Amino acid sequence: MNEFELIESIAARLGARPGEVEVPLGDDCAVVRLGGIRWALASDMLVFGHHFKGWAAPEDVGYKAVAVNVSDVAAMGGVPRFILVSGGAPDSGVALGCMEGVLAACEKFGVYPLGGDTTASDALTVDVAVVGELPDPPVLRSGARPGDLLAVTGELGASAAGFLALEGGKRGPERLVRRHLRPEPRVEAGRLASRLGVHAMIDLSDGLASDVRHVCRRSGVGCRVELERLPVSGDVRELAESFGRDPEVLAATGGEDYELLIAAPERVLEELSSASEVPVSVVGEVVEEGVSFIRGGEAVEGLSGWDHFG
Amino acid sequence: MNEFELIESIAARLGARPGEVEVPLGDDCAVVRLGGIRWALASDMLVFGHHFKGWAAPEDVGYKAVAVNVSDVAAMGGVPRFILVSGGAPDSGVALGCMEGVLAACEKFGVYPLGGDTTASDALTVDVAVVGELPDPPVLRSGARPGDLLAVTGELGASAAGFLALEGGKRGPERLVRRHLRPEPRVEAGRLASRLGVHAMIDLSDGLASDVRHVCRRSGVGCRVELERLPVSGDVRELAESFGRDPEVLAATGGEDYELLIAAPERVLEELSSASEVPVSVVGEVVEEGVSFIRGGEAVEGLSGWDHFG
Repeated sequence: MNEFELIESIAARLGARPGEVEVPLGDDCAVVRLGGIRWALASDMLVFGHHFKGWAAPEDVGYKAVAVNVSDVAAMGGVPRFILVSGGAPDSGVALGCMEGVLAACEKFGVYPLGGDTTASDALTVDVAVVGELPDPPVLRSGARPGDLLAVTGELGASAAGFLALEGGKRGPERLVRRHLRPEPRVEAGRLASRLGVHAMIDLSDGLASDVRHVCRRSGVGCRVELERLPVSGDVRELAESFGRDPEVLAATGGEDYELLIAAPERVLEELSSASEVPVSVVGEVVEEGVSFIRGGEAVEGLSGWDHFG
Repeated sequence: MNEFELIESIAARLGARPGEVEVPLGDDCAVVRLGGIRWALASDMLVFGHHFKGWAAPEDVGYKAVAVNVSDVAAMGGVPRFILVSGGAPDSGVALGCMEGVLAACEKFGVYPLGGDTTASDALTVDVAVVGELPDPPVLRSGARPGDLLAVTGELGASAAGFLALEGGKRGPERLVRRHLRPEPRVEAGRLASRLGVHAMIDLSDGLASDVRHVCRRSGVGCRVELERLPVSGDVRELAESFGRDPEVLAATGGEDYELLIAAPERVLEELSSASEVPVSVVGEVVEEGVSFIRGGEAVEGLSGWDHFG
């Protein structure tokens, strides 16, 4: 059973949904309407040895745990407001370092920490639960329609390149390492996209090749992604090639970009692109069925993203 | 730096509190007012090797992770409503077992799971974030006043006795083992206590000797607890003695009771005791200053509870 089957087996067993729950589990966040306002809730856990290794300082881990949750709220078109943070650490110095990173991220993203738990554990482990406010109806994974274009914010592969560098024992290039250790969730772009009425949105955590499949499955559609159109910067290409990796494949599968993948009509994407501070790049289109990745007119097979129990 | 100093160093660094936050971190739950309703939020993490060992089935761990969070809501006088659950497990079988326990607890406590995260980790780790509804103003740790009596719900030491048995390689007595593996948060008693206007409340997770100090410190008072008055059942006494342990000291320090400790005037406690389905036992009184534990008219020194980094 993989992670997604696990989630579906849980979803299938849930009882009646309380009236406040507008979106149950299965999207970037659940959505609950409390007192006339919609709130987005999600949690994400980082574990030493699996999500990071000795190359990440406890401060980076704390920061990233908040950032990846903020990204889930961004993917619904929401504004992150509150977090709870539970941390397990081998000693109080590591715990405190991690909390420093959590507080730095709270300040950066305008999030207020409501508490949580600190405990001892052999492996540094941080779980953050986030509560975001949704000024507009949430943007779900399930709204993509044939004829929509697919676009991504920012750039792809930078985090994966930073990860390759860190795993290879390099501390540089600093920009790429930083993109891996301290991702920049796209809250502004997500808000804009939501206000402009995009059809579907997801944040890129598992990697484009995997996350675009989530959107297609939930929307009952297919897609055609052109690898040449992925926004891959020069330093990412260089670093990927220095490790013998195909830059576009890395960008499509590396994961942890924490960019937004958006499905919307061309006109909406043009408005978004013009209003957004981060670049918005069209990378493909939504079709009736079948997920394909194309380069030089040929299908590229076997691209897939991350599965935690795969 | 111990766990409490860590929490205080975090609290001291927080920026301006958003208008919705009525109770910030430092109590059993934070309280946020959203759309005219007060909500209690908390999270608690369980880690293999620290909170449990091989004697706990993954199902028990998932169940308990929900139960201890429900207990935090109970200690504010709230009704548990929603959870997020993040789990790290060495394989998908363990993850699924743990989720079975989570779902069983959700059903038992009327809580709806909004999602969360599943990931790989060497040590089974479960973090639950809970959202509870507060029909009445929350009962805080800080309201105890000299002249109040101190009371506890249910019984003390049963969970600690079950833990001794499990650690000693016994699977019985079944009742005590169950009290450790599947605690019974006192939601009904907490609701009643809140409606009756008790002055202060906390759930007993670290152990009475430690938790009563949290109440005293936050309330700016002292207390006098009489060990002979602790509700310790016959099977707990027997088991403690079979391990060469002092039953009342075990009951005061063992922790993980998930009973409620309540400070209130005598009259209020009488009403509570008469209306509650679980027994309510007076165990001492609130005084101006100084925390003391008395037995046979003599002070018992050196009693303390759990500190995760102690």
